[in-house]
Amino acid sequence: MLKSCEEVIGLKIIGIDPGVATIGFGVLDYNNNRYHLEKCGVITTPAHTTLSSRLSRIYTDLTELLQMFHPDAVSVEELFFNTNITTGIAVAHGRGVILLACEHENIPIFEYTPLQVKQSVTGYGRAEKKQVMEMVRRICALNTVPRPDDAADAVALAICHARSSTSLLMQKGVSEACSTI
Amino acid sequence: MLKSCEEVIGLKIIGIDPGVATIGFGVLDYNNNRYHLEKCGVITTPAHTTLSSRLSRIYTDLTELLQMFHPDAVSVEELFFNTNITTGIAVAHGRGVILLACEHENIPIFEYTPLQVKQSVTGYGRAEKKQVMEMVRRICALNTVPRPDDAADAVALAICHARSSTSLLMQKGVSEACSTI
Repeated sequence: MLKSCEEVIGLKIIGIDPGVATIGFGVLDYNNNRYHLEKCGVITTPAHTTLSSRLSRIYTDLTELLQMFHPDAVSVEELFFNTNITTGIAVAHGRGVILLACEHENIPIFEYTPLQVKQSVTGYGRAEKKQVMEMVRRICALNTVPRPDDAADAVALAICHARSSTSLLMQKGVSEACSTI
Repeated sequence: MLKSCEEVIGLKIIGIDPGVATIGFGVLDYNNNRYHLEKCGVITTPAHTTLSSRLSRIYTDLTELLQMFHPDAVSVEELFFNTNITTGIAVAHGRGVILLACEHENIPIFEYTPLQVKQSVTGYGRAEKKQVMEMVRRICALNTVPRPDDAADAVALAICHARSSTSLLMQKGVSEACSTI
């Protein structure tokens, strides 16, 4: 039962690491417990321009990406800012526009904390960034770690959602199997 | 010279008090140093729905408002959160979408801090909220203070921009007058 559940899952997920200056993205195909990184990179917005024009660039570029890849889900990092509130406020502006673009394209949104992502990718919620990057490389069977870091972070978010979905479906499978006993 | 500068100014300004649950707005006509409040109110989004769907509602409703009134400028409150960072992050999501909607409609955006608004409306940057509300009522020659508070805050933002623009034009006028002496 568990095996068949895994086989059923075929998902295209776009992981998104939110921001205003640099927004990481990773397009991940997850099928039969295999991960294929279709594309990853960053959306960047020009410095020394208005916040509203940068937000518009993010919206336009992300919408283009979503329309190009038609993902089944997007996986976006939740925001926690205990240190720099000014940066937090700016990133939240960008994140609002990212959520809007996904909503406009009718793509289901899933949100994960950095701790959940680390836990999912490395098995340890307080893992070092380097360890997360290396696990992303291994899981996607890449020769090198995706660059820049924002892109790799986005791929980690996509992996986290793939694993979370599998886990949920497996639980459902077990539950359904039990209910038929 | 100063008088003619004031006479030249005719502006339609929409003040916007950003948020996620409630977004205040005030449509103000400013002409020949007179203030006419054309409309004010709030955009509200349903609780217990996803953040992305609430952001979408804000975008749609605000775009409709902008297309209905064709303002020359929008005046939006800057965010400062020293107390509740969770609220700050949520409001910043909404504010990002508000800036995007204005950018998409090609309307110039001006930003003011709460201190600037209070200073402009009451002459004192640390004025009580009640005093600001009462000054909004008097400046717009209304019988009662606009309700709810978010709407009145938005009108105060619009007044602040009207006065700031006048002040800038007057400075320009004086400067030009001086340069011809």
